[in-house]
Amino acid sequence: MTAHDPDVTLRVRDGLADFTIEVPSWAYGNSGTRFKVFSQPGVPRDPFEKVADAAQVHRFTGASPRVSLHIPWDRVDDYGTLAAYAADQGVSVGAINSNLFQDDAYMLGSLTHADKAVRAKAVAHHLECIEVMHATGSKDLKVWLPDGLNYPGQDSLRDRQERLADSLQQVYAALGEDHRLLLEYKFFEPYFYSMDVPDWGTSLLHCLALGDKALVVLDTGHHAPGTNIEFIVAQLLRHGRLGAFDFNSRFYADDDLMVGAADPFQLFRILHEIVQQDAHLPSSGVNFMLDQCHNIEPKVQGQIRSVLNVLESMAKALLVDREALKAAQLAGDVLGANGLLMDAFNTDVRGLLADQREERGLPRDPIAAYKASGYQDQIAADRVGGNQAGWGA
Amino acid sequence: MTAHDPDVTLRVRDGLADFTIEVPSWAYGNSGTRFKVFSQPGVPRDPFEKVADAAQVHRFTGASPRVSLHIPWDRVDDYGTLAAYAADQGVSVGAINSNLFQDDAYMLGSLTHADKAVRAKAVAHHLECIEVMHATGSKDLKVWLPDGLNYPGQDSLRDRQERLADSLQQVYAALGEDHRLLLEYKFFEPYFYSMDVPDWGTSLLHCLALGDKALVVLDTGHHAPGTNIEFIVAQLLRHGRLGAFDFNSRFYADDDLMVGAADPFQLFRILHEIVQQDAHLPSSGVNFMLDQCHNIEPKVQGQIRSVLNVLESMAKALLVDREALKAAQLAGDVLGANGLLMDAFNTDVRGLLADQREERGLPRDPIAAYKASGYQDQIAADRVGGNQAGWGA
Amino acid sequence: MTAHDPDVTLRVRDGLADFTIEVPSWAYGNSGTRFKVFSQPGVPRDPFEKVADAAQVHRFTGASPRVSLHIPWDRVDDYGTLAAYAADQGVSVGAINSNLFQDDAYMLGSLTHADKAVRAKAVAHHLECIEVMHATGSKDLKVWLPDGLNYPGQDSLRDRQERLADSLQQVYAALGEDHRLLLEYKFFEPYFYSMDVPDWGTSLLHCLALGDKALVVLDTGHHAPGTNIEFIVAQLLRHGRLGAFDFNSRFYADDDLMVGAADPFQLFRILHEIVQQDAHLPSSGVNFMLDQCHNIEPKVQGQIRSVLNVLESMAKALLVDREALKAAQLAGDVLGANGLLMDAFNTDVRGLLADQREERGLPRDPIAAYKASGYQDQIAADRVGGNQAGWGA
Amino acid sequence: MTAHDPDVTLRVRDGLADFTIEVPSWAYGNSGTRFKVFSQPGVPRDPFEKVADAAQVHRFTGASPRVSLHIPWDRVDDYGTLAAYAADQGVSVGAINSNLFQDDAYMLGSLTHADKAVRAKAVAHHLECIEVMHATGSKDLKVWLPDGLNYPGQDSLRDRQERLADSLQQVYAALGEDHRLLLEYKFFEPYFYSMDVPDWGTSLLHCLALGDKALVVLDTGHHAPGTNIEFIVAQLLRHGRLGAFDFNSRFYADDDLMVGAADPFQLFRILHEIVQQDAHLPSSGVNFMLDQCHNIEPKVQGQIRSVLNVLESMAKALLVDREALKAAQLAGDVLGANGLLMDAFNTDVRGLLADQREERGLPRDPIAAYKASGYQDQIAADRVGGNQAGWGA
Repeated sequence: MTAHDPDVTLRVRDGLADFTIEVPSWAYGNSGTRFKVFSQPGVPRDPFEKVADAAQVHRFTGASPRVSLHIPWDRVDDYGTLAAYAADQGVSVGAINSNLFQDDAYMLGSLTHADKAVRAKAVAHHLECIEVMHATGSKDLKVWLPDGLNYPGQDSLRDRQERLADSLQQVYAALGEDHRLLLEYKFFEPYFYSMDVPDWGTSLLHCLALGDKALVVLDTGHHAPGTNIEFIVAQLLRHGRLGAFDFNSRFYADDDLMVGAADPFQLFRILHEIVQQDAHLPSSGVNFMLDQCHNIEPKVQGQIRSVLNVLESMAKALLVDREALKAAQLAGDVLGANGLLMDAFNTDVRGLLADQREERGLPRDPIAAYKASGYQDQIAADRVGGNQAGWGA
Repeated sequence: MTAHDPDVTLRVRDGLADFTIEVPSWAYGNSGTRFKVFSQPGVPRDPFEKVADAAQVHRFTGASPRVSLHIPWDRVDDYGTLAAYAADQGVSVGAINSNLFQDDAYMLGSLTHADKAVRAKAVAHHLECIEVMHATGSKDLKVWLPDGLNYPGQDSLRDRQERLADSLQQVYAALGEDHRLLLEYKFFEPYFYSMDVPDWGTSLLHCLALGDKALVVLDTGHHAPGTNIEFIVAQLLRHGRLGAFDFNSRFYADDDLMVGAADPFQLFRILHEIVQQDAHLPSSGVNFMLDQCHNIEPKVQGQIRSVLNVLESMAKALLVDREALKAAQLAGDVLGANGLLMDAFNTDVRGLLADQREERGLPRDPIAAYKASGYQDQIAADRVGGNQAGWGA
Repeated sequence: MTAHDPDVTLRVRDGLADFTIEVPSWAYGNSGTRFKVFSQPGVPRDPFEKVADAAQVHRFTGASPRVSLHIPWDRVDDYGTLAAYAADQGVSVGAINSNLFQDDAYMLGSLTHADKAVRAKAVAHHLECIEVMHATGSKDLKVWLPDGLNYPGQDSLRDRQERLADSLQQVYAALGEDHRLLLEYKFFEPYFYSMDVPDWGTSLLHCLALGDKALVVLDTGHHAPGTNIEFIVAQLLRHGRLGAFDFNSRFYADDDLMVGAADPFQLFRILHEIVQQDAHLPSSGVNFMLDQCHNIEPKVQGQIRSVLNVLESMAKALLVDREALKAAQLAGDVLGANGLLMDAFNTDVRGLLADQREERGLPRDPIAAYKASGYQDQIAADRVGGNQAGWGA
Repeated sequence: MTAHDPDVTLRVRDGLADFTIEVPSWAYGNSGTRFKVFSQPGVPRDPFEKVADAAQVHRFTGASPRVSLHIPWDRVDDYGTLAAYAADQGVSVGAINSNLFQDDAYMLGSLTHADKAVRAKAVAHHLECIEVMHATGSKDLKVWLPDGLNYPGQDSLRDRQERLADSLQQVYAALGEDHRLLLEYKFFEPYFYSMDVPDWGTSLLHCLALGDKALVVLDTGHHAPGTNIEFIVAQLLRHGRLGAFDFNSRFYADDDLMVGAADPFQLFRILHEIVQQDAHLPSSGVNFMLDQCHNIEPKVQGQIRSVLNVLESMAKALLVDREALKAAQLAGDVLGANGLLMDAFNTDVRGLLADQREERGLPRDPIAAYKASGYQDQIAADRVGGNQAGWGA
């Protein structure tokens, strides 16, 4: 296959026409491991500066027009002002992420806590998030439940599920008409013996119990080793409940590295499954987001690299000859079918994407253009004093 | 805690009164790895001899009154005769296991195969199994689906789910009034890229679509590393769909070692979750089975050891002071709650169980009694000539 | 087997007579995950208070007479005073742990950094640690190298090994006559793509190159899933290079939970291998240490529980009938040999250990005694104001 | 980067000029899992037919001029005749692989067995292999030790190491002047609790003890999940002991799929490390071999695909701009250094390689050429009757 074939070119252009990737406000702040958070020059000191950084990613890629907010890290006095600022910068507010892991009350759980008062507090936090959604025009409430146990016997696995169902019901009931609740699962961390929503099955069952507006979030770093993630994508799409992706990559745990950095072939397989079900189209309702930590690399550049990685992988997925693939599959041609997939993966789409960016008035090489723009030097010079943003703010 | 406390003694006796463990007919035949099947003296040459061996396990433990059959390995001309023979030996026929992995037609799938004719063949095989159920009085049809893919793109993940749903529907429709369909999931092997029922979520969703008589089988060796199995137990019980266990143990893959041999604390935690929900009682409908391969150890003795391991672990689970545990959990006493669990686990229940066996006219030490019985020497002497049973027959 | 057999009692008493477990100063400070560090009442505010807490563990268990220090967290003006204070409290200073992960200069490495100046800084830090050893009487310099890479290509894997060898040589050359250098390995974290000392092989090869005073530290939480840790123990003992253990437990990653909490049978197998080679005796030179984080549980109590867990597991390992085991192994009696091990593991040794504590004037139930002592309430009342210790201090 | 740059073209041509991949005789026979071996039409029935198939791979790729033999599977009356036949077919005999897993005597071990007579038998088997080396001109004796334990306590971990060292010493002593002993390690399977050579550290230590002619074999499927294989490559090269690769790919266990099929980026990283140390040149002494099972795909075609995958990945590794990479690494430019690696990986080298094949008189598309050759139909028609080769013969 060659990426210069006109049919192929067109297929990629059409496929990517309305495909966008949401970026997280927290990717521009400092982050790290339990051992150390290294600070970097130019890191934002407030939500406005985070939005400004996010807007740079969109400016150079043309593919990331939304920025997720995280409450309370992105609390501001007037969310309308923040939304207007975002619009000025050329982006809009995406999903609102709640935080159930940094309040002292949540040491032993939040929505699943044995104490009703703590659960009520956690539910109330989501009501605040829903207010932010109304104020910013956000449609997605993203809930990652960090609750879990460190020791066997510490609490009842079963009771925590019942409490969770009850808490989620209360949150769900408060959603606006056009709001969605996106429930994320995670295999382990920050608790080690068990997590209360450890897998897609648990998340999906809670969503099914809640109603049509509850959907599952798949974070690519939140699985046991060896898990076939594209299979989960297929399952969630089959049940109409894939609400969003949190893209990143990992070698062993929830490493939160740049998407496509650890296993680009896995990313391609996931996006192939997406394309097979036309879930890359906006009508699918799947919100493609990044959720990463740039611990040691420059942050805006890391986000640009990540967006490009998703675009390149998606372009390859769009290259796959679906009809030929189906025919080979039905014929039981193991190597032929696999070969069609690998042919697309092995094709270099970077020139094609550069051409298409150029057509749209975007830089052929977004990384080089960003570096040449002087933005990084500017923020390093400007953002002196104040408190650098991080996971604590 | 001491196991000599009369309250404790009584709790264990009551808890184990009706608790039984089903043993598999194939545990007495030769088994091995892809590298080698080592043969052992005295191995059965037909289903009757397998049943005879299974009956020994019950004779010495008093806890394994049923034996699972596997079709076609246990095909006989007259299943009524086999059932009657089992009754003579003091056991009955348990679940009927279908086989979807040894027919040449199934190389690329069975119930999920792209070719409708192959799927029809696989469905028909289950109709034969249901006939065996009618003939033997078995109530459980156990389906482990070995279907899967070795290479990305080899077939459509999504289409295979649709085909599976359709095939299962046909099997389900043929069940007798009081029959159950038990659907087992497995993380990997015999296919490596993806399995068509790789996890509890997939199995449960198919069961929910089928109807009330479809339940999930949890094989303790069929998970990714780090998976919290007792969490899955809690989930399946919460949804009323835990149909059966396949007990065994593993260090890394589906090692099929003796249950309790690799991680006895995990076995205890699983059974603790069972006891917490009263699922050890027959009314729960959970069928506790062994599914193991004795590649290098004596087979009947390996089964006796396994049954004892489950009983000992269950006895420990019954020791847990449920009220104190609940109180500690509600109080957020992490170490107190964990300590109550560990106290039970650390208690030596072997003397207590020996006492209770003695009361029932069973040997205090079933392993020693079996070895002293001369059975192993007898079968080694008697079973000369013929074809030793194995996974092929 | 019964723990009341006089021979057995004696074997355990003798085996434990000189067996001790070193506790870490940092276990009493606050710790957590990258998501949150929860603070607890009564946490120490300086190294003296840490030593005071550590002394409590020894007071109630009689088995933890040494406390490891961590530099710079435990920097004091006068180490002699700190050592004297420890002696007053009934304990002594154990290993000195260097810190290569919290200086801003170390973002891309310390002893392996591409920049010679950073490596020199990291080497100099160890010279400071060696000074502390001279001042406190410590004999062990423990080096955990957190260096690694997050992205493929980020640095040369090979060059980093050469730099590491050179840096370690400089540290080794500065050791005192009776000092040892203990080099720890870790599979992953805080870097995700590669660690510079990820496995025992790497650590051992560096130690062999350094000389006789360099030995390997085995942290039980620092391995890939499925790794057989007792095999590594056997290998390191075979080569005379097992310098120390960092005990803790984990379900998936480096969870740093209480030793024995996640897989007590694994702990037993490790200690069985230790006992088989008489490495529990002080003459072996193996330093048995705890390295844990008590994120959600009371800290002193968590340490006491951990010390007891090691003692109980060690007592079980001492119960194993070595001659009978050897005979069964040589006879190829798979189930017999395994059964001898399981017999010891299944025996309840807690009463025996309580008896032996009582003989030594120690409390039968150290946890209960500690709780009754009022120490926890006292420190919660006393330690108000100041900065609670944590990983940053 | 573009693959059409003349400098790049030259670098690839030079780098691949003398790079070859050895293929295994057993890849053309039937293979499978413990559940089922599916047979395929045209499978060889003797070693000569295996060699004929192997020669096809070389005929179409020009890159696989050697074929490994396996004893006893490839036993013939006259090895000189077999070697001459191979030469006629355009290939030569590569490594001789011993078999320590299929003799009934080896159930509990071979070179490590507790019984001296079994060890002697296993040593004697290697003397036969060395005879085959003399007769065929092979220089490499490849030893994969499948020995291990299924149950804790089953045998002494330590004693087995001592026995292994002794057995290997005897084999080593029998090597010819220009022979090498290649010792392979494997994480798990066919034993599950422990393997006697489970990791590179164990293999290397035995090699170091044996002498200069003993080197380590790295099979890419023989590691725990998350293991960084290129790090091991770097370590073994650093110590001058990387003797050979067994290439294949895996998703979870030792899946033995086609190399490059599961994680092509990992293959690239491994070969990048090889190229960085010039270990792709024959002078390095590294023997690059395939070791795969084609359970469901056509076998000769599967081998051709695998050879092409290695060549394409090696070509990409040769594309890396070593000087620019070194500069970025020394500058601490995380994203720049990673970007240089990714640039090479993302480049499509297939056209370049097709050009270079054409220059050498080889087909541009070896798969298409092989399919067009009619060879597969021919062997399917010719090889009727007789016993198809598999792991048993």
